[in-house]
Parts: sequence; C-alpha cells; structure tokens
Amino acid sequence: MGLLVVGSIGIDTVETPVARRENLLGGSAAYFAYAASFFTDVALVGVVGRDFPEEHKQLLRDRKIDLSGLEVASGESFRWSGKYHENMNDRDTLQVDLNVLETFDPKVPAAHAEADFVFLANATPAVQAKTLDQMKKRPKFVAADTMNLWIEIARADLDALLARIDTIVLNDGEAKQYTDERELLRAGNKIREKGPSTVIIKKGEHGALVISESGNFSIPAYPLEEVIDPTGAGDTFAGGIMGYLASGGTVNKESLRRAVAYGSVVASFTCQDFSLGALQKTDRAAIDARYRELLDLVRIDA
Amino acid sequence: MGLLVVGSIGIDTVETPVARRENLLGGSAAYFAYAASFFTDVALVGVVGRDFPEEHKQLLRDRKIDLSGLEVASGESFRWSGKYHENMNDRDTLQVDLNVLETFDPKVPAAHAEADFVFLANATPAVQAKTLDQMKKRPKFVAADTMNLWIEIARADLDALLARIDTIVLNDGEAKQYTDERELLRAGNKIREKGPSTVIIKKGEHGALVISESGNFSIPAYPLEEVIDPTGAGDTFAGGIMGYLASGGTVNKESLRRAVAYGSVVASFTCQDFSLGALQKTDRAAIDARYRELLDLVRIDA
Repeated sequence: MGLLVVGSIGIDTVETPVARRENLLGGSAAYFAYAASFFTDVALVGVVGRDFPEEHKQLLRDRKIDLSGLEVASGESFRWSGKYHENMNDRDTLQVDLNVLETFDPKVPAAHAEADFVFLANATPAVQAKTLDQMKKRPKFVAADTMNLWIEIARADLDALLARIDTIVLNDGEAKQYTDERELLRAGNKIREKGPSTVIIKKGEHGALVISESGNFSIPAYPLEEVIDPTGAGDTFAGGIMGYLASGGTVNKESLRRAVAYGSVVASFTCQDFSLGALQKTDRAAIDARYRELLDLVRIDA
Repeated sequence: MGLLVVGSIGIDTVETPVARRENLLGGSAAYFAYAASFFTDVALVGVVGRDFPEEHKQLLRDRKIDLSGLEVASGESFRWSGKYHENMNDRDTLQVDLNVLETFDPKVPAAHAEADFVFLANATPAVQAKTLDQMKKRPKFVAADTMNLWIEIARADLDALLARIDTIVLNDGEAKQYTDERELLRAGNKIREKGPSTVIIKKGEHGALVISESGNFSIPAYPLEEVIDPTGAGDTFAGGIMGYLASGGTVNKESLRRAVAYGSVVASFTCQDFSLGALQKTDRAAIDARYRELLDLVRIDA
C-alpha cells in the first residue's frame, strides 16, 4: 500500500559560502517525498498557500508523487531562510514564516489511510500524532523526525509519540539534548527505552549511527569533493531509507542497513546543488552506482 | 625485521570533565608502541630526562617493547598538561615543557636500522627526516604523523618529508589547514599529490577516512558508552594500524583496511581510561572480540 509522508512544504531562501538562492522548493516532506520517489510510490500530505509556485508542484508531479493530500489554503506558504557558516555544517535561521503551516491540520486521504509505511516528517509531535490517529490500521512501519524545538517545548507529546512509532530519526545534537547524555550510544539506547525499536542518529558529514534492537550499525557519509548546499540532506536521507524499505516491504536487520546506505547516497546527491537540483539530474541507475561505491568504501574483508 | 617508532615520551597531566590525573605516562611514541605491541615486536627510539619514573619504563618493558633506543639525557622529561572541554573533543593545552625533547636527536640503534616498518610519531619534520636518514635500507613501509604547528612553521620540511613516506596520518582539521580545502576528500587527494600513496585522516569520535591509491576507505569509531580520556587515541590508532601491518608483513588494500579497523579498536580502548590504563587491562583476545564487533557494526550485505 505504498509510502505516506506528512509534513512541511515551503519556499526557501538559502545562502551558503558558495552562493545565495531564493524561492527554492523546500520543506521536509517535499525533500523526503522526492528522494523516496526513486524507490517506490509516495503520497504526500501537507499544506501550501495560494502563492505556492506551480513549477514547484510540477517538480513533485514529475516524480509521480501523489499530491491528493496536498491542501491549498488561503494565505501564504511556509517560508524559511537560512545562512550556512563557512564550515557548511552550522547554519543560522534568518527568518521563519509559518504562514499556512501554523494551523496545519493534516488530513490523510482515504486512499492512503492504509499505507504500510508512514513517515512523520518534522512537525509538532501533536500534529504528527494526528496523522497516526487517521490511519485505518496500524501501519507496518512508522518512522518520525523531530527537532530541538519540540524536545524543548513539547517533550511530553514527543514522549507519547515515541511510544507509537518504530523508528525515530534525529540528529546527534538532538539525541544528546533529549537524553542529557554525552555519548550517542547511551543517548540512542535511552531513546529506545521510550518505545522505538530503532533510533537513527544523523551526524551530517559524519554519517549516521543506528541504535537498534537488531544490532547497532554505523555508516559514514559518502565523501564529496564539494558541498554546495546541505539543506534537505537529512530529509532526503530519511526519504531514501523509507523509500527503499517500502519498495521491498520487509524491515529486518539486513534491509534496514541497505536502506540507511541508500539514504546516505540520496543525501549525498542533495548536497551537490541547491534544493532538489542535483536529485533532479539523477536517476536510479546513478543512485545504485553510488550505492555500490559506498559499499566498497566501508567494506572490510575479515 | 619488526616495527620501529621514533617520537616523544613524556609525563602528562590531564583534566577531563570526569576527573584530573597527574604524572601519567604520555607521549606519542609511548602510546604508539604500547598499542602496536599487541600485534608485533616494537622498538622505540626517544629521549627522557633523569626524572623519568621507572614505573613508566616498566610499563613499556612489560609489553616487551625494545627500549635500547631510549636515551636518558640530563635534564627533565617532556611534560604536557591539557584540559578537555565538556564535549570531550576539544581541548586546551595548559602547559608544554619540551625539556630534553627540545634538543632531541634520534639515534636509531644498528639492530633496528633495517626495520621493515617505521613510524615517525609527531615531531618536527626535520627530526622525522633524521630517522629516515639513518635507515640502512629503504623500509618496506614508512608512515608519519604531524600536527598543526609544523604545518604552520615548517611547511617546506613537511613537504620534503611527505615525498619520502608511504602514509601520513593527520587529523581532519590539519588536513584542511594543510591544503586550504573545505572537504576532506579533496584535502586528502591534494596531500597524496605530495607523495604518500595513502593519507589517513583521523576524525576523532567520527572515525577515519583513508584516501589511498588502492581506493578510499571510511570507518566509524567504535561507539563507547562513556569516554574517560581521549588522550593518546590518535597515537594508539596509528599503533594498531602499524602493528597489525608489521605483523602480517604485507600492505595492500585489504590488509590496510583491516589494520585501520584494528587501529580504531585499540583507540577505543584508550579512551576508556586515563593514559594506558584501559590498554593495560586488555589483551589480544579482547581486541579481537571488539574487532569482530566493529566489523559487524559496519557490515552491509549487498
């Protein structure tokens, strides 16, 4: 029954040490869906304003992403602008206008309420829970993202959400913040105790650490000669993971590892241009080729 | 003909968020030799003062490290003291007293001047070159460490040294500093152009990236529940690598990868106590067990 993602879609302005670009397609669900579409059918639930550019919607449609759950509300679209530091890892948020996202009340179309794979992209844990409430059956696999703000101001809601999902995806700083632990291994294990059988900790250019009941797993990022814009790397990482898992239908130790490797590969493409620029120029064959390169990069023959 | 290491031996005072400890055995060559001794015979060339504690020497002798090249000079031993930040990655050097190290003029005993494997631990590139000058034949494999200070004040000497060695080991910040590149892949390739066929970039808690003519390789650090003191982790990482390579005698793509994995394992033990405390309590069987764990941590079945 495919893959459903619920989350933000918006318009970004991004400045990096390399260049500045305005009015880009952005938002966690947009990035996620685009990345996942290389692997499986994706349906997106979100909200935009009446000002949302038709060309951005077309980009998603070109990847056959189901937009029947994309609400167009009166008002303006969510807008984010940020500026990356010289090191390309840290960034300052210059402006956030939630606009129509402020009252986002996700409505899962009946056609997608039995999706087997569900990704709750970054939103308040309460909004994320509302999506789960609408599912007609417990999906086979539910993963969610979160952020520092919800850990700070909506911890009880986040705790409650964790008890209902299989996997949480968050970055290293957030994992430490959530648990007050210095080491990611201990942080990940503490988060696992709250419910999810798997915790995927994103470490940006350093890859990811997966803490799971089926055994821990660590993967480096695919090394790039040049990073143009890392915006959306984490969302496309999750999109690659969920897209790959949904395409096979089976989640186990081995498929999860392959999925995380595919997520890393898709995220590496994302960093090679602004917005979805690099992913627009790639295809599944190029993704598979880089996947094989990544496997060779980490291979050790005992 | 075994493994020769030339470099510093000293007395450390270390403060971490966990505790503070004085008069520890320290120095890059001491850490290196101790780690390598789990794999092969090691000879150490260095200098200490007359104040150097007998118990520190005994620690090295207990691992059958050949100290015939350890000079005892009049004067005091090299002393270093440092304090780690809350994150355990950054540290401030509180005091450095070079003492007898200031005029260190390495003398390779005749018995070790035909060593097949040589490691030039951190020292001025000129001092490192002096060791190579004393070798009776070109060793099979020469690796060297360096640091930010030599990149800054002895760049020409370092360039000259790179042309004479097989592998340079340095940390990520140093690789970027040396090449003025933002991405490690490009930095590593630029350093390779200066001579070494392999560049091993240490990333601390994030593992290592190996840029090599035989193909690149990336490995995460072995995740720990708790880090007590990371001092010497980089030196024992190099010790594990060189010790493993010297024990087998063959350097190729596969043995290099296994060696780097062993280096990571030994470095992880180092972080679990001050100085060589944790390595003193381990043995080759425990190292092998953790090595298998690390291999499982990174394994992806295609």
